[in-house]
Amino acid sequence: MTAQTKQETAPDSDILLVDNTDGVVTLTLNRPDQFNALSEEMLAALEQALADIAQDDSARCVVLGATGRAFCAGHDLKQMRAKPEKAYYQALFDGCGRVMQSIVNLPVPVIARVHGTATAAGCQLVASCDLAIASENAKFAVSGINVGLFCATPSVALTRNVPMKKAFEMLITGEFISAEDAVESGLINHAVPLDKLDQAVQALTQTICGKSPVAVRTGKTMYRRQHGMGLSEAYDYAAQVMAGNMMAEDVAEGIDAFMQKRHPVWKGR
Amino acid sequence: MTAQTKQETAPDSDILLVDNTDGVVTLTLNRPDQFNALSEEMLAALEQALADIAQDDSARCVVLGATGRAFCAGHDLKQMRAKPEKAYYQALFDGCGRVMQSIVNLPVPVIARVHGTATAAGCQLVASCDLAIASENAKFAVSGINVGLFCATPSVALTRNVPMKKAFEMLITGEFISAEDAVESGLINHAVPLDKLDQAVQALTQTICGKSPVAVRTGKTMYRRQHGMGLSEAYDYAAQVMAGNMMAEDVAEGIDAFMQKRHPVWKGR
Amino acid sequence: MTAQTKQETAPDSDILLVDNTDGVVTLTLNRPDQFNALSEEMLAALEQALADIAQDDSARCVVLGATGRAFCAGHDLKQMRAKPEKAYYQALFDGCGRVMQSIVNLPVPVIARVHGTATAAGCQLVASCDLAIASENAKFAVSGINVGLFCATPSVALTRNVPMKKAFEMLITGEFISAEDAVESGLINHAVPLDKLDQAVQALTQTICGKSPVAVRTGKTMYRRQHGMGLSEAYDYAAQVMAGNMMAEDVAEGIDAFMQKRHPVWKGR
Repeated sequence: MTAQTKQETAPDSDILLVDNTDGVVTLTLNRPDQFNALSEEMLAALEQALADIAQDDSARCVVLGATGRAFCAGHDLKQMRAKPEKAYYQALFDGCGRVMQSIVNLPVPVIARVHGTATAAGCQLVASCDLAIASENAKFAVSGINVGLFCATPSVALTRNVPMKKAFEMLITGEFISAEDAVESGLINHAVPLDKLDQAVQALTQTICGKSPVAVRTGKTMYRRQHGMGLSEAYDYAAQVMAGNMMAEDVAEGIDAFMQKRHPVWKGR
Repeated sequence: MTAQTKQETAPDSDILLVDNTDGVVTLTLNRPDQFNALSEEMLAALEQALADIAQDDSARCVVLGATGRAFCAGHDLKQMRAKPEKAYYQALFDGCGRVMQSIVNLPVPVIARVHGTATAAGCQLVASCDLAIASENAKFAVSGINVGLFCATPSVALTRNVPMKKAFEMLITGEFISAEDAVESGLINHAVPLDKLDQAVQALTQTICGKSPVAVRTGKTMYRRQHGMGLSEAYDYAAQVMAGNMMAEDVAEGIDAFMQKRHPVWKGR
Repeated sequence: MTAQTKQETAPDSDILLVDNTDGVVTLTLNRPDQFNALSEEMLAALEQALADIAQDDSARCVVLGATGRAFCAGHDLKQMRAKPEKAYYQALFDGCGRVMQSIVNLPVPVIARVHGTATAAGCQLVASCDLAIASENAKFAVSGINVGLFCATPSVALTRNVPMKKAFEMLITGEFISAEDAVESGLINHAVPLDKLDQAVQALTQTICGKSPVAVRTGKTMYRRQHGMGLSEAYDYAAQVMAGNMMAEDVAEGIDAFMQKRHPVWKGR
């Protein structure tokens, strides 16, 4: 959360930067002076950008990063405080939930690139991503409790990553944890020195781009869908998905290449 | 579990000590010579005390501790052995399940203060609490298997804290794990030297008492309820809870205080 | 996965070795030159062996190991590639799912003894077992993605052991993790030097064989069944199971022995 009062100087269209280079779509939160707070406008821009990516067959994976000192300070408290109406808040949190679930439901992997503090709904963004790499100086908190607002929606994402007591301690104390602690807790995959962060993220995107697109898309979608299922239902679903995946040209090529000890050449969508 | 045969010397009303100081309700298991075994009477006393706290608006959080050498040895084996009737056992385990779920459903956080061994249903008590701090010498086991009785009800609480294979190893071997291992496994939050235990517990209760009561109560309840839901259902529920929480006076005060860089003054229930 | 082209020299009946010594049933994958790939024949042999064990009252626990350099390389890619028919693949993955669920549903604990690499469905076998001990040199990967085939069915087992982001990283990169990392992630219980592996597995089987058979069987079954239930349903079920377990002769003996500080003598089935 941020209490910055400075007005935005950039036009709305610049609050979220979008770049697609060779299928790696980078979304960059760009309200640095407001610590990239998730204003209504920012949430709407994220929702639109994610919807666009969902339709873009050239997308291979997404990197979610940010400019300025912080990664994301969560909701925009100043904007929220200005409209004390329950219906407005309901719509705001529903919209935020849609953004988070769009990440989960996106057909390609989403990687959080966390270079600074990630707070409240900013921490929820990290938890919602499929993968996360942070700089060693990054810190994570779900600190709404400090302003009297329990981080309810962030808790949904957090408890699907972090053990129960650890997550509740974060939520009820509002205290920051270190990047190292975030790795141990399962909130992020890796913590690296800040000056190696781009290199580490790029290594991961290049690894993903080196795989068959059909396998990556099939996998991302099935992985998230099976998670809420019972064991028997999940196995039935997974067997169907895998039988379908087997019929892709890329698998024939992949197995042939493997048996011939050469690199595969993917075609696939 | 305990096989102590010594008779209780204290009257029944003293088997569970209850103290409410400034909203911190301390429940102290007080059958030290029986290693605080959960007799019928102890379970009934706990159920009543938790029901009372649920109705007490002054309660801010609960500390669950114990007297004597052990934290809690689980069910009272001597008492159980004396009544070999299935209906009796069914009622006993149903009652135990109600106590554990009362902790989960209590509208304020419950912190286990574990100064010694926590065994079987005693370990389940720890697992059922929202938070747990133990002394470094504390040990944890679900050791019913050693007397031919698989810790079935404790496994329910344990698997909601600890990874699957780790929990099963504890249940099928009955062996103790150290406090350090319990931290790494997610069973407890922290292990501290015994002579720092009260200080660590007090720091946590004071942190919680420094938060808005409405946020703490809202949060504890929603956190536990969302846990069993699917992702989409959980987000819908969380958005509703959060919109409601936003309408509390404490949030206006909390945000204003944050923006004015001062400490908030909470009103709220 | 394996691309070995060498023909099997052993007759089919030898691809899975079965030994029952004092109730410890050892299943040994025995296609060492094919890295114990899970051919149709191997899956059928496993399914039959597990069905036999489910009917065998003398079985106390199962050890699943393998011969040769690898533990298990997953599906037999050469065999799969030879029959590019969706119905065939569907039947193959359904059969594989039945084997994995047979391990979960078996009434006695199954211990993976992992002496080398466990890949794709081989890693799924490890994840599906109740307990797992590996040599320190063992490695684990879900590497179908490298041949264009996302490890969908393995992901079902993996996510029920390993935190979300860690599991997804393994699935989307296909990279190996070390035995040490597998312990920290919850995929296995322990990693020991290769020359201590049999000793460690034997210590665990002997511990299990030292418990009451009725408690072990009751526990294994209820542990797995409660896992998919909501909290209240799980407690109701667990209380019923535990009341039933209390009526077993072994519990009377177990409690008496405990109170008399002697070793129990189990009767029980």
